[in-house]
Amino acid sequence: MLEHPLGYRSAAISAGVRDDTLDFTLVCSETPATAAAVFTESSFAGPCVVLGRDSVADGQLQAVLVVSKNANVATGKQGLADARELASQTGMLLGIRPDDILVSATGIIGQPLPMDRLLAALPRLTAALAPDCLEDTALAILTTDRGPKVRSRRIGGCVLVGMAKGAGMIEPHMATLLTYFFTDARVESAELDAMLRRVADRSFNCLTIDADTSTSDTMAVLANGRAGMANPNELEAAFTEMAIELAKEVARGAEGATKLIEVTVSGAPSEEAARQVGRAIAGSVLVKTAVFGGDPNWGRITMAIGKSAVSGITPERTSISVGGVDAFRGEPLRGTADPEIARVLQGTVVPFHVDLGLGAFAATVWGCDLSYETVRSNAEYST
Amino acid sequence: MLEHPLGYRSAAISAGVRDDTLDFTLVCSETPATAAAVFTESSFAGPCVVLGRDSVADGQLQAVLVVSKNANVATGKQGLADARELASQTGMLLGIRPDDILVSATGIIGQPLPMDRLLAALPRLTAALAPDCLEDTALAILTTDRGPKVRSRRIGGCVLVGMAKGAGMIEPHMATLLTYFFTDARVESAELDAMLRRVADRSFNCLTIDADTSTSDTMAVLANGRAGMANPNELEAAFTEMAIELAKEVARGAEGATKLIEVTVSGAPSEEAARQVGRAIAGSVLVKTAVFGGDPNWGRITMAIGKSAVSGITPERTSISVGGVDAFRGEPLRGTADPEIARVLQGTVVPFHVDLGLGAFAATVWGCDLSYETVRSNAEYST
Repeated sequence: MLEHPLGYRSAAISAGVRDDTLDFTLVCSETPATAAAVFTESSFAGPCVVLGRDSVADGQLQAVLVVSKNANVATGKQGLADARELASQTGMLLGIRPDDILVSATGIIGQPLPMDRLLAALPRLTAALAPDCLEDTALAILTTDRGPKVRSRRIGGCVLVGMAKGAGMIEPHMATLLTYFFTDARVESAELDAMLRRVADRSFNCLTIDADTSTSDTMAVLANGRAGMANPNELEAAFTEMAIELAKEVARGAEGATKLIEVTVSGAPSEEAARQVGRAIAGSVLVKTAVFGGDPNWGRITMAIGKSAVSGITPERTSISVGGVDAFRGEPLRGTADPEIARVLQGTVVPFHVDLGLGAFAATVWGCDLSYETVRSNAEYST
Repeated sequence: MLEHPLGYRSAAISAGVRDDTLDFTLVCSETPATAAAVFTESSFAGPCVVLGRDSVADGQLQAVLVVSKNANVATGKQGLADARELASQTGMLLGIRPDDILVSATGIIGQPLPMDRLLAALPRLTAALAPDCLEDTALAILTTDRGPKVRSRRIGGCVLVGMAKGAGMIEPHMATLLTYFFTDARVESAELDAMLRRVADRSFNCLTIDADTSTSDTMAVLANGRAGMANPNELEAAFTEMAIELAKEVARGAEGATKLIEVTVSGAPSEEAARQVGRAIAGSVLVKTAVFGGDPNWGRITMAIGKSAVSGITPERTSISVGGVDAFRGEPLRGTADPEIARVLQGTVVPFHVDLGLGAFAATVWGCDLSYETVRSNAEYST
């Protein structure tokens, strides 16, 4: 059972963007909330991201409106006008400022939003707003996801809800995919922003599905203060834990994924260097296909380490283990058809551990395997 | 019919590295040749690359020895000792300096070379040296390649032969895969080195198969001067043309490839920026699977452009066409299920053209699609 933060209402309906599934959702706080967000670093970011950056610049949001099944990207001037129009009409219906509304869209790129259907559906959406129904929003933001990714946590007298959407085009740099957090805790604006960036770096920024950065990635948090102060350390710990759980769920549920790859890199000269090496491994097509096939060919991990641009790495100082089985420590310790490593690769979670022998920093990165189904689902997406 | 340069002998045999196919080959010049080479930028470069960098540092080589089916990578101190031993024994048998021998190895990572079999086979290999049989060498360097990639060109009274091996793990940064050129032209050392780097940048460095950089990439050229001077411009033109042809053959013949992707990027602020955007497109898993599926979803190209780290790119200034069909020019010009674009994607060569509207530079990058067969061949490589 999802716990709900105080002072939020939400609704999710089908506007018929692509079919009759839930594709239009709104979450609204009673009062303006302190807010922070990070967005994709893509230079082809969609108009919703362009507008969203402006909306959150003052550290305040009151509502989040999401369209799914259409990304409103590469849609030119009309795309930006459409995003503005959605914010403006929603603001009018709710009696709140349009620039306190974060508008997101996710789905196919290059098609204009069906504005007639969305504008016709908007009064129905706002009329349906009700407390305690964020599960529907977690469903409505999905595209090719296998299922909703949502959770809640109680921190003292406050509640934090988090949800994520993402099944492909996931290689975060600044932020990633669509993920929203709502809390009734009171958090000061600069603190919330700093906290969000730290959480993003340890969760969604440690995720790589296909090394393809989306044009729509958005991670946002709203804190409306209705339940008063929460212990900031406890809040951040819960926030981090939930974000990591959601990130792992995204990897596990990615298009065609059959296994979760969990790469821990230690002995790195910095946390970012550890993440970089982890991403090179978890993002490698050759590693991902080997994991899918259960091929204990750990040599591919050395290839992936080698291509990461972290300087100072040498084979001599590097150790590699797979699910606790030591494979390489400056010298090969196992054959490339080792049965113990093969057994680890049969699991649904495949843990790699790499130590670079260069420093004191570590990080964990998540990804998934690459299967026939990955190819099928991506070869036939728009048709 | 391959033309052969004067003053080279070669041989190729099976040493039984993995099976009884050709896996051990030697090309030897009568006299020491002017030589240049570029190697992988991987920090996990194999011992052969480490040794090769030393060997070519003085601008001179006399022989190239290649083992296929085993990369001799991640093999620790023993791997380096093995590479040295191969050079030393070969030098002894041929009566030439070991550091004038470039030793390469390609194949599976993490397994020690079968030195007993290689050393036992070496006298047989040197005894088999004969002129005019470089086709066998082009066969012996292959691993999972579909077929040999070799060609020759006459430049005045001189001949240039080029060959390449590569089927996966191909995302060149400095050099790429294994590719050797032999000529009887006389070229001064510094000139040969500069020429090689220019040729690499316009051919193999414009190739991306799976964004996975090999630990063994090597591109080398030997010029023994036996046929005298060639016109340097004509030589470089032939060299460039042959290298581009070989690079395209590598893309077309990559593991699981069914289509060649040819991305031309113009209007870039530099040639390197154009290549970077081209590589982001040709290397994108989502673009590659869409090409495989014949899905005219050109929106994925905008995603790939956006994730390239070239600064200044904006959707407003960007144009995209697919096989001459204009899809996007600041605004979408075609639907994402456009039948004309779908028709282009049915071809075995899929040309994308992107103009960034930022500058006067252009480059072309080659890649291939990602199919079920790509997954299959990589999921079962070592087993």
